[in-house]
Amino acid sequence: MKSETRIQIDASRPEDRAAIGEIARRAGVFTREEKDSIFELFDTHLQSPDSGYEWFSARAGERVVGFACYGPTPFAQGAYDLYWICTDPDGQGRGVGRALFAAMDAEIRNRKGRLMMIWTSGGREYMPASKFYERMGCELSARIRDYYKPGEDMVVFVKYYNSNP
Amino acid sequence: MKSETRIQIDASRPEDRAAIGEIARRAGVFTREEKDSIFELFDTHLQSPDSGYEWFSARAGERVVGFACYGPTPFAQGAYDLYWICTDPDGQGRGVGRALFAAMDAEIRNRKGRLMMIWTSGGREYMPASKFYERMGCELSARIRDYYKPGEDMVVFVKYYNSNP
Repeated sequence: MKSETRIQIDASRPEDRAAIGEIARRAGVFTREEKDSIFELFDTHLQSPDSGYEWFSARAGERVVGFACYGPTPFAQGAYDLYWICTDPDGQGRGVGRALFAAMDAEIRNRKGRLMMIWTSGGREYMPASKFYERMGCELSARIRDYYKPGEDMVVFVKYYNSNP
Repeated sequence: MKSETRIQIDASRPEDRAAIGEIARRAGVFTREEKDSIFELFDTHLQSPDSGYEWFSARAGERVVGFACYGPTPFAQGAYDLYWICTDPDGQGRGVGRALFAAMDAEIRNRKGRLMMIWTSGGREYMPASKFYERMGCELSARIRDYYKPGEDMVVFVKYYNSNP
């Protein structure tokens, strides 16, 4: 990938499906069950655009180099969940994650969102992700001990949006 | 209701649907969206018994006086979510909630579960519920500020099961 290629973020297209699966596979941190869930949410979104799951793809030219999925949280006013954010390992360090995050931020602010939640693993292989969320302005708000398995906690990051920025 | 009637807990039956809706309505704390979700989970359970949602009804004689719904948490080994637990206001103080909780505890231990999570409101009207969870051996593990709306936090209770009790 040429490093000068500009990263563009837009709504995911049906034909991004295979690339999204491939990026999730290459990321190397997701279990089989998690990868199935990515496809399930993507297919739900394609079949019912009002499902509440919003998808973004990051592109370098024609190539998909990252994706993100978020949506409104049930039972809460102005709260959103970030379900997945993932950058192709080849494209890391080029601001792909930051660009995806900024696109979601803009959408959430646009919808007068109050907060975004990220439920993720506190395991060692997720440390780079945790540091990324903190750089994006998220607070580490909770830790559920031994959630995924003994020794692997769940951590919850929250980004609060000031409605008068 | 005669106070000497013994409380029995068993799997919910299709014909419990109306009573479950009525108990949720009379509980007075659930929003319309939450009540819809109770029916949705109940109907999913009836249509696909393998859905993962397990339902219990508490009965005093023939009458349904409480219900609970729980199920395994995605992506986590041996973790369960308690989705709903509710006692008919008429039947409170008779150990209905405790009996429902004990039935779930037994099932989760039986399945070698490690923990059960309860995601609930930290609002004033949920204080009795929070105190109940603490009496049932749950720890207040997390608080997400302003989650439901400004001033209404989410709180997370966790009950850890010792696999060698």
